[in-house]
Amino acid sequence: MINLQFQYNQVYGFLSEEDIQFMQDEVDINHSLLVEKAGKGNEYLGWIDLPVKTEDSLLDEMEADARSLREKAEIIVVIGTGGSLLGARAVIGALETLFSSFYATKNNPAIVFAGHNISQDYHAQLLSLLDRKDYAVIVVSKSGTTTEPAIAFRLIKNHIEKKYDPAEAASRIIAITGTKGSLKSLAEKNGYKTYTIPDDVNGRFSVLSPAGLFPIAAAGFDIRSLLEGAVEMRKVCIETSSLTDNPAASYAAIRSSLYRMGNQIEILIAYEPQLHHFTEWWKQLFAESEGKAQEGLFPAGGNFTCDLHSLGQYILEGQRILFETVVHVSKTSNSLIIPLDEADSDGLNYLAGKTLHDINSMAALVTSLAHTDSDVPNMDVIIPAIDERSLGELIYFFEFSCALSGYLMGINPFNQPGVDAYKNNLFAMLGKPGFENETELIRARMSDI
Amino acid sequence: MINLQFQYNQVYGFLSEEDIQFMQDEVDINHSLLVEKAGKGNEYLGWIDLPVKTEDSLLDEMEADARSLREKAEIIVVIGTGGSLLGARAVIGALETLFSSFYATKNNPAIVFAGHNISQDYHAQLLSLLDRKDYAVIVVSKSGTTTEPAIAFRLIKNHIEKKYDPAEAASRIIAITGTKGSLKSLAEKNGYKTYTIPDDVNGRFSVLSPAGLFPIAAAGFDIRSLLEGAVEMRKVCIETSSLTDNPAASYAAIRSSLYRMGNQIEILIAYEPQLHHFTEWWKQLFAESEGKAQEGLFPAGGNFTCDLHSLGQYILEGQRILFETVVHVSKTSNSLIIPLDEADSDGLNYLAGKTLHDINSMAALVTSLAHTDSDVPNMDVIIPAIDERSLGELIYFFEFSCALSGYLMGINPFNQPGVDAYKNNLFAMLGKPGFENETELIRARMSDI
Repeated sequence: MINLQFQYNQVYGFLSEEDIQFMQDEVDINHSLLVEKAGKGNEYLGWIDLPVKTEDSLLDEMEADARSLREKAEIIVVIGTGGSLLGARAVIGALETLFSSFYATKNNPAIVFAGHNISQDYHAQLLSLLDRKDYAVIVVSKSGTTTEPAIAFRLIKNHIEKKYDPAEAASRIIAITGTKGSLKSLAEKNGYKTYTIPDDVNGRFSVLSPAGLFPIAAAGFDIRSLLEGAVEMRKVCIETSSLTDNPAASYAAIRSSLYRMGNQIEILIAYEPQLHHFTEWWKQLFAESEGKAQEGLFPAGGNFTCDLHSLGQYILEGQRILFETVVHVSKTSNSLIIPLDEADSDGLNYLAGKTLHDINSMAALVTSLAHTDSDVPNMDVIIPAIDERSLGELIYFFEFSCALSGYLMGINPFNQPGVDAYKNNLFAMLGKPGFENETELIRARMSDI
Repeated sequence: MINLQFQYNQVYGFLSEEDIQFMQDEVDINHSLLVEKAGKGNEYLGWIDLPVKTEDSLLDEMEADARSLREKAEIIVVIGTGGSLLGARAVIGALETLFSSFYATKNNPAIVFAGHNISQDYHAQLLSLLDRKDYAVIVVSKSGTTTEPAIAFRLIKNHIEKKYDPAEAASRIIAITGTKGSLKSLAEKNGYKTYTIPDDVNGRFSVLSPAGLFPIAAAGFDIRSLLEGAVEMRKVCIETSSLTDNPAASYAAIRSSLYRMGNQIEILIAYEPQLHHFTEWWKQLFAESEGKAQEGLFPAGGNFTCDLHSLGQYILEGQRILFETVVHVSKTSNSLIIPLDEADSDGLNYLAGKTLHDINSMAALVTSLAHTDSDVPNMDVIIPAIDERSLGELIYFFEFSCALSGYLMGINPFNQPGVDAYKNNLFAMLGKPGFENETELIRARMSDI
């Protein structure tokens, strides 16, 4: 059974229930293409079955390796970029203790990321931190050739081999990679433990493969519950295309309708700052799946209530080209009550005795109404808590609705020609052997300017 | 003399130099309105002269107070939201050692923020951190009534008064507020040191007032150099409206032209992750200034190269409704060279001996060309380094161009009716005394749904 709820009463001023139901036939067709694996990009549909196909023995193995890394590391560096980083970072960011770096110790290491930028200062300061701490490394790269994580791994491999003896260094490195490629061979040669990202799973849909699961386990979280949540959401998503019963289909139909009505931006909003990196994962999922053929909703993120003092102005009164999808959390992990202050010198006693979460929920409600009244359609995705089970449901919900939205838009949601072009342009610019022709073209292009 | 450079050769495919120069008359008129303080919203033009009007004695005083806070705090909590937080966070985030929380000690405290959300988990976990650390508090709120920082300050005031004796607690709190209001009176009553945000400076333009300067000084940075950079940029911005000589006017003219041509989104891009919070400041500056009367460019942020594996796909192939402004940094603080690996098992030896910064700059160049070729106009703002002097120039550059852009768009860039409405709606929803009529209206509105 799923616990996630999808509510869309705040879109009724823009779309009637008939408008939504009108999408049912189109959804039926595209739902079939997806679950029967007969649509565009069907060579990359491995994500659909990851929750039910992940072997128990693989989970056992990952959990054991995660424990042993945690025992000897104060810091675990996760190296990756794009889909090889954002999924793990989304889940770890949501679940870890805030301010966790103040508390990092062995058995309770802090997770830091690398390979997602080419900043000299970032990597120099990271190496300086690693000088002083015991650490371990998880390198995630399906191809093994993407420039940014390859550079970060070379730097950190060089560092760890100076810090520890060869066997110890190798035992502190885990590689998560495809069935072949340069990282795979490097790992075999050096005796690193590896986990495999299946061929039919691409980056942005890989968080429930070892690409996400292993770093999440290493951060100390329960990957079985994460998968259980996804298993339950998968059941509902696969079983029915009914807009009444399948919340992912319903979300896909509504956002597609809002797009066809002329909206150009979708903002994913969360009122819990821990979900910031979840929003970043969502942005990649949708930007890379939909942004093709000069189509697609531009995905933006909102960290409320902070951004109500920023983007909030634009949302209320700027161009009417956007709608919102809001992630609500029913119950928080902590409770915190506004204390009574006898002098009431700040005039806040009218809030005394209320929990912060009550106030946060009221801020969300009043904002939703105000945005509706300002012609900004908004929808709610409600999860019971920020825990592994709920995040598993939420991840699969967005993955399935993203795939279905892509089909409703008539594009292949599973390729990323623009990102592949960037990777190859960068090889050419840097003069990578094998890219001589492309290097020539880049040089010619540069002489134009 | 300014060191910032503004370059726009990558917009020539979309706008000719004649198109740009065609804006000169309109820019002249609006530049006059701005510098003669005769335009819309001219009661909030205090920011224009902050760099030259800040007394040396005030800087001395802030520096001394900053030193004494740093001596006794392992953590400094800066409480604020919107413009009372984003400016300080932008500069501190850009300048602080990455991973600074791993190193926090007295005399080198870590800065953490509060009051920018109403998350129960966030604030509970912050209080739990503060249980274990010596800390000080800077509370920033011009009105003193904004709900989020008021709540955070009540919680933390309650905490600090239990942790230290009354005099010690009071000495660890600095309030930065308007010339009147509830925080001002509370501070006077409790004997907190205060600094004043001038009446004619509003939140998003307040980073060079004590709202930003004091937290930046407390984080250990040189506020005199920051102001010096702003002084130099101010000189150029005020002196001339010539599109050839005033880079802020030139940026305003080009982005306004691109908007009039049908672009709807501007993405501010940085290749240094330290600039992430600078981008958030920029988003507020432009969203809140321009997002009015159903007008305005939607401001989005891009952390490259990370987001080239995410939004990158959309930028290259999604809807052609966006352009980019890229902040480049000529020189980084550290140097880091790709080491040679004899075995070359990752195939990266073709990069050996190059610095990361060389590679980062090449990634920026190849991306700029590819985006131009995909019909995404892009402009470059180049600063010599991420240091106080350069950030001062950059801040004033964006403030001035934002104000001018607002005038070019025909709106008042200095009010924020939507954000004010949110603040009042929240009071009404929470049943604040004095808002009884609004509370009735909200209740009636809620009974509709």
